[in-house]
Amino acid sequence: MLKVYLSGEIHTDWREQITDGAAGLDVEFSSPVTNHEASDDCGVAILGDEPNKFWHDNKGANINAIRTRKGIADADVVVVRFGEKYRQWNAAFDAGVASALGKSLIVLQQPDHDHALKEVDAAALAVARDPAQVVQILRYVLTGELPQ
Amino acid sequence: MLKVYLSGEIHTDWREQITDGAAGLDVEFSSPVTNHEASDDCGVAILGDEPNKFWHDNKGANINAIRTRKGIADADVVVVRFGEKYRQWNAAFDAGVASALGKSLIVLQQPDHDHALKEVDAAALAVARDPAQVVQILRYVLTGELPQ
Amino acid sequence: MLKVYLSGEIHTDWREQITDGAAGLDVEFSSPVTNHEASDDCGVAILGDEPNKFWHDNKGANINAIRTRKGIADADVVVVRFGEKYRQWNAAFDAGVASALGKSLIVLQQPDHDHALKEVDAAALAVARDPAQVVQILRYVLTGELPQ
Amino acid sequence: MLKVYLSGEIHTDWREQITDGAAGLDVEFSSPVTNHEASDDCGVAILGDEPNKFWHDNKGANINAIRTRKGIADADVVVVRFGEKYRQWNAAFDAGVASALGKSLIVLQQPDHDHALKEVDAAALAVARDPAQVVQILRYVLTGELPQ
Amino acid sequence: MLKVYLSGEIHTDWREQITDGAAGLDVEFSSPVTNHEASDDCGVAILGDEPNKFWHDNKGANINAIRTRKGIADADVVVVRFGEKYRQWNAAFDAGVASALGKSLIVLQQPDHDHALKEVDAAALAVARDPAQVVQILRYVLTGELPQ
Amino acid sequence: MLKVYLSGEIHTDWREQITDGAAGLDVEFSSPVTNHEASDDCGVAILGDEPNKFWHDNKGANINAIRTRKGIADADVVVVRFGEKYRQWNAAFDAGVASALGKSLIVLQQPDHDHALKEVDAAALAVARDPAQVVQILRYVLTGELPQ
Amino acid sequence: MLKVYLSGEIHTDWREQITDGAAGLDVEFSSPVTNHEASDDCGVAILGDEPNKFWHDNKGANINAIRTRKGIADADVVVVRFGEKYRQWNAAFDAGVASALGKSLIVLQQPDHDHALKEVDAAALAVARDPAQVVQILRYVLTGELPQ
Amino acid sequence: MLKVYLSGEIHTDWREQITDGAAGLDVEFSSPVTNHEASDDCGVAILGDEPNKFWHDNKGANINAIRTRKGIADADVVVVRFGEKYRQWNAAFDAGVASALGKSLIVLQQPDHDHALKEVDAAALAVARDPAQVVQILRYVLTGELPQ
Repeated sequence: MLKVYLSGEIHTDWREQITDGAAGLDVEFSSPVTNHEASDDCGVAILGDEPNKFWHDNKGANINAIRTRKGIADADVVVVRFGEKYRQWNAAFDAGVASALGKSLIVLQQPDHDHALKEVDAAALAVARDPAQVVQILRYVLTGELPQ
Repeated sequence: MLKVYLSGEIHTDWREQITDGAAGLDVEFSSPVTNHEASDDCGVAILGDEPNKFWHDNKGANINAIRTRKGIADADVVVVRFGEKYRQWNAAFDAGVASALGKSLIVLQQPDHDHALKEVDAAALAVARDPAQVVQILRYVLTGELPQ
Repeated sequence: MLKVYLSGEIHTDWREQITDGAAGLDVEFSSPVTNHEASDDCGVAILGDEPNKFWHDNKGANINAIRTRKGIADADVVVVRFGEKYRQWNAAFDAGVASALGKSLIVLQQPDHDHALKEVDAAALAVARDPAQVVQILRYVLTGELPQ
Repeated sequence: MLKVYLSGEIHTDWREQITDGAAGLDVEFSSPVTNHEASDDCGVAILGDEPNKFWHDNKGANINAIRTRKGIADADVVVVRFGEKYRQWNAAFDAGVASALGKSLIVLQQPDHDHALKEVDAAALAVARDPAQVVQILRYVLTGELPQ
Repeated sequence: MLKVYLSGEIHTDWREQITDGAAGLDVEFSSPVTNHEASDDCGVAILGDEPNKFWHDNKGANINAIRTRKGIADADVVVVRFGEKYRQWNAAFDAGVASALGKSLIVLQQPDHDHALKEVDAAALAVARDPAQVVQILRYVLTGELPQ
Repeated sequence: MLKVYLSGEIHTDWREQITDGAAGLDVEFSSPVTNHEASDDCGVAILGDEPNKFWHDNKGANINAIRTRKGIADADVVVVRFGEKYRQWNAAFDAGVASALGKSLIVLQQPDHDHALKEVDAAALAVARDPAQVVQILRYVLTGELPQ
Repeated sequence: MLKVYLSGEIHTDWREQITDGAAGLDVEFSSPVTNHEASDDCGVAILGDEPNKFWHDNKGANINAIRTRKGIADADVVVVRFGEKYRQWNAAFDAGVASALGKSLIVLQQPDHDHALKEVDAAALAVARDPAQVVQILRYVLTGELPQ
Repeated sequence: MLKVYLSGEIHTDWREQITDGAAGLDVEFSSPVTNHEASDDCGVAILGDEPNKFWHDNKGANINAIRTRKGIADADVVVVRFGEKYRQWNAAFDAGVASALGKSLIVLQQPDHDHALKEVDAAALAVARDPAQVVQILRYVLTGELPQ
């Protein structure tokens, strides 16, 4: 069984495309909380309000880190998706953690970001352009089958 | 002696401000190659041209990784600077590596990036706003002296 | 599944509040032996009396360490509760072990101890004030649901 | 050469007694910042005020952690002193970190704390009652000489 | 249960001989993709053609590394088979990885390669000459039974 | 569930006493091959005769190491029994391995060996005198129950 | 200072070309014993003859491993040279060890071996074609200077 | 420079033979306290008497462990000498620790102990019969020179 953590962009359905595409494969997926609002507010919603936005964010980021740490630590493969918008520093941060822990890293991104992502790509075992390629990699790694 | 790796933005003189400010302290600084052009082209300049820009970048990023890996691995403290421009995913990647290796992380960035950097900041032991604060932290950590 | 070790104070029912509150979540809890007398006397009860109280305690503490080490080593999350009474150095010791092993640390304590616990809190991903908040964190981490 | 980190109580001169007593031995000592006020306020003095005392403490504790982490990580031996007053949870936390990292731990404390410290003591290689005993241990470990 | 990774030569049926021979034993086998063509072309088949054979190979080798890394990381025992033909540097590379990770290494090779493989053999716990011996080792390790 | 490796002396029924006594507890035991003859001859029986007794022993010891390494690596607790006869250096070696890997070590031996075993005992969390005490420790660690 | 271990082929003067070319750089080189005869016979020359060539080789390989292990463990960068002749499995084995330990790997080899070395190359940060390129990499990594 | 820890038997002058023989080589030796009486009594001499011999020994063994741990942790090579007398379980324990930490292990012992030491020998890179052979190994490892 392959454990795969799906990190990064949370505004499109790329995770569903991958988990749907991998139906039938012996893969266990995990991911961060992808509800943007919940993810931003979890800290103050549980532990109490902060007037200062910095600490509001800090409390939330630390609670989310409980899930992220476990997801990456348990994973065999970490897929990190960089989308078209936002700075997505947390995605690159996760890629750095995954790389330092010796996880197999797959980056999912479009060619216009190639130069900006060159250090992250260089640490990856594959740079995929769409979710279908990620599924094909997982299928090949598990079964040896290539796409027709 | 404290070993400090200065990662991230290479277009302003923040590294010089820190190293000048820390003159007299028992600190050994290291950093990536900060000549942007050399950093981009080192792969093909040494190992031969690549018609495809992706592999041009890949060769360069991997050679730069020799220096970066050693810099972070040897460091007690990793300072990661996020500037106003560019996506700087390599900076966030370095922060992830540093965090996973248990290095003390200091982030240097402006408040308008606070929300986008909240996961990186949450992994840091300090979020500084200017190079002088980084110097003050290093001085305090080494000598116990606070700014007047 | 999330493995959670519940360390610290053994005189109130905070562990029951958490395990009851987390009913239905995919969590596996472990904890030290919470029978105070058994915990104090296990060494001499099994391995023979010691006239010197120091060695009486030493034998017991080492046997309890078999359970504690495994509990922390296996855990994804370590919750450490500091109560109103006693010095609870073993709770802070467990927090240090958990931190050094890279476990996600949640501290459960009242505000009047904030200053005395500032180093422990700073190493934690959350500082909760009551068991219900710990349950809410575990629920959010596992399901993404926030309290209403 | 033996590297020794002196953790814990900062209100008496036990560190000076040890470093003076060890004069002439091949030992390199390190310790936290022992100026209580500077240690409490370093976070806000460098990084800016916090109206909430919790974050005031948090900023300071994290900056102090830069020094503490390095001190313990570099040490062969960690001496942790528990004094008569205060809760000293940071001392027990440091002992936990040192233990998890496989450092040789020496606890320095009075017999009336034996029961409360039994878990910490059980993780230690020596429980000393005064600084002179710590010096004698260091001298013996380095030279094989016992006290006359 | 014993996890065994079968690395190396992919042109003969030695893996089947071992897995058939070990029928009934509590062993879980894994191996690289042994379809030579698929293994060579997986990179370009999934991620797109490369005109330069070096990058064609590079993309494929990296995708295969996802499977290899997991196989070795999860294994208790790594069996590395060197055949009569080809240079099989990947087999020796896998043996080096396995050795550095502290895995129990079994080498399967013929005596005419003894001198060339002396460094690899010296890192192994057994040098077997045919698949039947590997099966006998696995049976003995699991059950204590020796061949009649 | 607690994983316990039973290392050392193979001429008395101490392992049976422990496994029988622990019936009903959530423990999984493992041990070396305890058939003395098979253990001595496994190397040559499988991999071919050696005229030199040194290499005869070497081949066997290495094959046995496959089982021992896994047993200790997987264990939470390593029990090492020193009997009345033989030098049992392999038992002390296993204790050293277990200690370096941070396993909970229980030594089972008679008082007349206390002085000779003082370094091994000092690394242990318990020194038991008979198999019943080991069972009582395992029961207490798992259930909190002390012997009546 | 950069520590570089030069592994692999011992029949040409590539090591001298690199060490000469790197004169003036802050590099410390190490390498295996490159006297082929001494390397082959060290085991029996020191520890006594073996009639069986397998054990003759085994004794030598193990003594050479003392030097190799230290060289790789201490290195920041491991350069592995594959020559035109011989099977050089020890070179690929060293590359595997270096890779598993997280060392920066540089492979030095000719294009006709590209396909056979694709797994090793994929684990490397650079694939150089001649010693001068290795020198240029080391110079760039240390000083940021590119070849003119 | 090679760091060598000399563990085991303390009643003959084998350490002097090795250190004298290695004069001029770039080796730094360390060893336990070899004054038998001091080694036995250091615990009570420094930390106070114990009426029970077990705790007398325990206190001493733990203090000696401060020196032993550092010696082995810092070493590249651990030489373990088994003499003709005594059980020397501490020597075998040190060998187990050294092996688990990946240190290069050299065993120094006479052939009549070969069978009893077969597990320890199998973990070693060399089994030497006299101190001169150990010196020859160190000289060869450092300089490539073989004995004439």
